[in-house]
Formats: sequence, C-alpha cells, structure tokens
Amino acid sequence: MRDFLPAEKARRERVLQVIKESYRAHGFDEIETPVMEDSSRLHAGLGGDNEKLAFGVQKRGLTHDDLQAAETPLDLVDLGLRFDLTVPLARFYATHRAALPSVFRAIQVAPVWRAERPQKGRYRQFVQCDIDIIGEPGIQAEAELLVASLATVDALGLRDATIRVNDRRLLIGMLAGFGFPADSHDDVLITIDKLDKLGPDGVVAELGERGAEAEAVEAFRVFLMRPQTREFLPFGERAIRKALPEGADDEVVANLVAIGDAVAQARGEAAAPLVFDPFLVRGMGYYTGPIFELAHPSVPYSLGGGGRYDGMIGRFLGSDVPATGFSLGFERLVELVEPLAAGGGAAVALVHDADAPLGTLLALQSALVARGDRARLVKRAKNTKLQLEQLAEQGFTSFAFVGGDAPASADDLELRPLA
Amino acid sequence: MRDFLPAEKARRERVLQVIKESYRAHGFDEIETPVMEDSSRLHAGLGGDNEKLAFGVQKRGLTHDDLQAAETPLDLVDLGLRFDLTVPLARFYATHRAALPSVFRAIQVAPVWRAERPQKGRYRQFVQCDIDIIGEPGIQAEAELLVASLATVDALGLRDATIRVNDRRLLIGMLAGFGFPADSHDDVLITIDKLDKLGPDGVVAELGERGAEAEAVEAFRVFLMRPQTREFLPFGERAIRKALPEGADDEVVANLVAIGDAVAQARGEAAAPLVFDPFLVRGMGYYTGPIFELAHPSVPYSLGGGGRYDGMIGRFLGSDVPATGFSLGFERLVELVEPLAAGGGAAVALVHDADAPLGTLLALQSALVARGDRARLVKRAKNTKLQLEQLAEQGFTSFAFVGGDAPASADDLELRPLA
Repeated sequence: MRDFLPAEKARRERVLQVIKESYRAHGFDEIETPVMEDSSRLHAGLGGDNEKLAFGVQKRGLTHDDLQAAETPLDLVDLGLRFDLTVPLARFYATHRAALPSVFRAIQVAPVWRAERPQKGRYRQFVQCDIDIIGEPGIQAEAELLVASLATVDALGLRDATIRVNDRRLLIGMLAGFGFPADSHDDVLITIDKLDKLGPDGVVAELGERGAEAEAVEAFRVFLMRPQTREFLPFGERAIRKALPEGADDEVVANLVAIGDAVAQARGEAAAPLVFDPFLVRGMGYYTGPIFELAHPSVPYSLGGGGRYDGMIGRFLGSDVPATGFSLGFERLVELVEPLAAGGGAAVALVHDADAPLGTLLALQSALVARGDRARLVKRAKNTKLQLEQLAEQGFTSFAFVGGDAPASADDLELRPLA
Repeated sequence: MRDFLPAEKARRERVLQVIKESYRAHGFDEIETPVMEDSSRLHAGLGGDNEKLAFGVQKRGLTHDDLQAAETPLDLVDLGLRFDLTVPLARFYATHRAALPSVFRAIQVAPVWRAERPQKGRYRQFVQCDIDIIGEPGIQAEAELLVASLATVDALGLRDATIRVNDRRLLIGMLAGFGFPADSHDDVLITIDKLDKLGPDGVVAELGERGAEAEAVEAFRVFLMRPQTREFLPFGERAIRKALPEGADDEVVANLVAIGDAVAQARGEAAAPLVFDPFLVRGMGYYTGPIFELAHPSVPYSLGGGGRYDGMIGRFLGSDVPATGFSLGFERLVELVEPLAAGGGAAVALVHDADAPLGTLLALQSALVARGDRARLVKRAKNTKLQLEQLAEQGFTSFAFVGGDAPASADDLELRPLA
C-alpha cells in the first residue's frame, strides 16, 4: 500500500479524469459501492483465487468467549474488503435493477484490496477501472466496450494499442477437438494461460506433468507448433480460420468477425486494431463468450481485458442476465502514459516577505483565483533561487515578489515566468 | 454503507470536483493515503472516541491456535480502516516530510469508516474533505484556511455561510477564571459542548450532576445567563470582548481579530462572515488554538470545522510541528447544495431500431464524442414516449431516431431536444 505525494496524486487524478470522461462520453454511467461487502458474498465462489486474498474485517463487540469458540478465522469476520469490482457490481445490479436502464452501462473506478505479498508492480491496494454492459445479449455490447476502451486508451496518448481477442467457446471447442475430456478443460486452460510465460514447449511439458490425456496433448502440440498458428493476420474471418483447427463453430467465428467490422467502422479504419489469439484464456472461469486483452507494443504485459460473462450476474438474481465487461489496468497505464497537461490557467506563487500585509496577500490570492488561476502564498526563503526552482518543479508557472508595499490589485503584480 | 446510483454518483462527483478545484486554486495540493493504517497507530490515543469505532482488519493466515491464544479481539488484527484523515495525515507527514514544501498545504478528499449504529445522516462509510496547513505557526494559516473554505462554500452556491470562531485558550482561561480546577477542564468542556442540544439550563444541570465544583458552576451560570453573552455582534474586538468574561488573554483576542481582518480584506467585505462564540468547544481534545465551525442559516447543524492542533503531528515526529486544519462535512453539504450544472456539451441518445447497422451506429457515436458530446446507443422501446421521458430524467439533452437507413455522418442526424 502506498502514499501518493502531490505530484503523483495529481498525475493519477488527471489520468482517472480522462478515463472517466471518455467512458462517460460513450454513454456509460458511474456508480459506487461500499468498499466492504458481506464476507459470505466475497467467499461465494465468484472471485476465483482472489477470494483467498480478501482482507477480512473483524466483527465488532467480540468477547473472549467468541474468540475461544471460533473454529476458523472466518467465523470472526462478517465483512471484507472487495478484491474486485465485479462481485460488488453483481450485488449492486441485483439490488437496484428496477431503478436502472434495461441495458445498463456502468463505470466503476475505485480501489480494491488483495492480501498479496507485495512485489514489483503489485500492490495490496490498487485502483481498477471497469466498464460493464448488463442486459445486452448481442455483440453490440462487445463492440461498444471495445470502441469506448480503445478511444479511452487513445485519449491517454497510447496510440498503437491492440486488443487480443478470443472466444471461450472456441477454446472449449478446440480442446474437445483435440480429445481433452470435458472435465479436464478448466485444468488444461490454466496451463494454456501460461503460454506467454512458459512458451509452447513449457506448456506441453506442464500438460503432461499434470496428467492430461497423452493423445490430446500430442494433438495440441502438433497444432501449437504449426508456423501459421502464431502468425497473426489482420483481423477478419481469414485470420481467425487460419489460426484455428478445423471444425470451429461458424456462428462464434462470425460473431467475432462482426465485432471487428463494427469496431473498424466506428473508428473509420480499414481494419480494427484487434488480433485473434486462439490461446488467449483470461484467468477467470466465469467468461462465457468473447474475451479480450489490451496490449501495447511498449510493454510485454497486458494493460487490461474483459469479456462476456453471462452466467454470473444471475447468481445473485436467480435468472440469467447477459453481461460483458472490460477492465483497464490503471496502475500499469498510469506508469506508461506521458504526463497529461493540467488544464486551466496559470499557477502563480506569490513569494512574499514577512512584512507583507496578510489581508492584502489573501486579497491578491483571491483575485487570482477569481480570474481562473491557481495561487499560493509562499514565504520568501533566504535562497530565493533554489526556492523558485522548487516552485517550478511543483508545477507553478509564474511568480511575483510581494513585499511590505504589496500592490492593492492583482493587475499590478509583476508576474514573471518560472522556467 | 450505501450504493450510489448514477444520478447520485454524478452529483457527488461534481460537488467533489468543485471542492477539490477550489482548494487547489487556493494553493493546496491533493495527497492520498491507503485506507488501512496499522492498528496500533489507529489506537494510539489521537482519535478520541473515534478509535473505538475503527473497523479492525484480521491478520492473514491465522491458525486455530492463534484464535485460542488471543486474549482480546485486537490481538487478531494488525490493520484497521481509518476513522478520520488526521491520523493518516500525521503519519504521512512524518514519513514524507523531507519531500514536502516547508509549509505544506494538503487536500485530502477520501472515505473514512466508523462502526456506528446507522442513523439518519450518519453512515459507516462517508467522505471527508480535509485541508491542512502544516508548518505555519502564525495566523496566516488560519486565515488561508478560512478564505479558501469560504470561497469553496461560495462556489457550491451556499451563500450566507458563517464561521463560528473561538480559541481553545480562551475556553481554558474562562474555566480557570470561574474556578474550575485544571484537571476538570476536559470534563467540563464535554458538557459545554452540548450547549446547542441541552440549552443553558441543561448544561448547568449536567455540570452539577457530573460533580463539578459548585461555586465554579454558579459563576459559569451567571455568566451564561447574561443577555449579552449570546448576542452576537459583527466580528471584531468589541464583539469578542463583550462575549467573554473579564481578564481574557489580550494576545489571543488580538489574534482572532487579526484573522477576521485578513479574511474580510481577502473577501473585499467590511466584516468577515465570522461569529465569535465563547462556548464553541469542538469535540477533539487535540486543538490548541483557534477553532472554527461552519454554519449555514438553512440548517441547525454544523457543516464542517477545524482549528489549530500544534501538538499532534509532533507525536509521530518527536518534535512539535504547528498545524491547522479545516474539514468540510461533505455528506451534509452534498445534500444541501443545489444540483451543479454538468459541464461540457450535449448528451445525445441515439434511439435506434433493431435493424440499424451496428458499425454505423458506433461511428455516429464516435463522431458525437469527438465533437465533445456525450452519446449513448439506446434500442428503441415500444413505448417511445416513456422512453424519451426516462432519457430526459437520466440527463440526456437531445435525441435522434436512427433506423435501418442510418445517416453516414453525424451532421445528418436529426437531433431533437429532450424536454
């Protein structure tokens, strides 16, 4: 968990603002849920491995007898910090469905917590930026998510982003075609998900070690080693067909092609910045259709992702509700983007002597604020040169010295630029 | 704890934005700390009664033996959710002091948590908006806080706000003058703090019940019942003198007068919107100088407050550091302010038939977004009249019907206003 000092906080806030405004412009609505959810809901099996990482909040008013009687630590907690924004969204939608549009486009930009051992690029508190469309069964949902997310990444100045695309149903079809038994698919996918890390040989080896059906592994190996399997063509039917084994589901393929066409047209481009990746898995088991991962040539890791998860919201409602989501990896994005220009007017430091009259100083500050500037009163230091350098570093754009004979009007300030 | 649906979330975000921008314009810098602090720090005696309301976060990896060995519930927690933003600020400043300006002006706008029994207007998760100036011993700090906070309240459209003012040292001097022994002052102040609720007779009665020195209570009673004690004059030396017993500390009075003069000059007003209240206590024991409370004629309760707390930051540092703070009661303010106009362009609903081509729809949306509008694709409902009413309620300002023959350019959309 980290503190954010002024410069970093300002940078984060500007990036968040760009993301929120872009998604909002694309018709999404921001919502907010409490950081704590009922512990039972956090441990209901919807969060995968993340459930184990939930911080538990201790029940209030526990007695010594309560501690003695507890069989497991979970007996002593009733709430927990959310580990993602999807479980809270499902609970939110189940609670407020009647007050929401029939197709609900949600933005959630908020911190989540995971009790991980801290490591580079991983934090126990970090911000997630999720958009979700609930109630739209067709590919309009996927296309909207991708158009909005690509526009958002563009707005952050990260040109050349691409989206890796697959469909959970194609994955399952492929595994079935190779002869993996249905009850092994989840397990096999966990290994395939490591392709980027282990490489093709490593994946094949691990499948063997984990006891996967040998003939199926061999069929998979042969397919994986085909040169054309990892040769990505411009997104479209030809690329998808070429990257898949024979017998892929026509409707699912057509679905992906239609998503790509719509995204390309929306962006006024000949081809959408999508790449079909037959081995893209996405960790979470709840995906049921198209899945996505945001990539950028400047980094080897994913910058976000999402997909269709039609079964999950229904777990809280008792009836199936179609849903798709896309999550931007905010903590990674914020380190990648160039500092975004702060909007607004000048930032003025009124560098004043000790005898400058306080009321006049404050009146000058108020006048600058009233005309749209930022203004700070700063007592003049002995080393003025160093002080001005520091003010420039802090983002101030101009300054004026104010002494005992402070001018009565801001118009009479002698403002000078800060390098 | 509450969910926030789109309209309420948008309203909260706009109010937060106004607050942050106003304070930032007045030279304050936003910072952020993690929501969890070490439990030992939260229970170090700096948070008064709020410490008891801290949510505790259970240690990870507890065994059954750990549960059995625990003597108190606190033995099983190592972290807790912050109950205010002052304890985290003190810890932040102690950690990062070397990287901060010598006079540090902080904005913190963030949620805090208290395990209170929910009641009207009280929530277990709520947002605090704090500004603090650390490192400035003189009244410039108090004057800056008041000027910035009054300007912020003005920006929220709450004209006619006033600030009730007192000084902790005048309170102590007054109690000593009436003959309350020094070791009873904290206790007596807890009762005086209830003056608004209990009335003068109630306060006198409670002081008696709690065993306060009878002669001192009588002297206090006589003073309290003077007509002029509760008759507020325009802020200035005459008002302060009249409201206090004989023998008040000249320097402390002059201090308050100077703060008022500076605030008045900053605002270009004959008198500052301050009111001297000799019985203003402010709950927290850590205040050491001037104290403030934000009032508005439309509500009987305080909308914020603060004061000087010179001893506290030093508790984490080992050396005294002067500090003043002001906290806006965001949850109360947000219910009071008129909806603030959302900035930006039009909000357009593209109400489309099922056969409108998806790519064209998305291209129209992208074109509207590119010109600064907000745009949402909305499938045409059977009851179009109701649908348009709902879109207007959701804040959309115009709409266009789009059918199978959708125009290729946004310029050819027939946009119509939504009532």
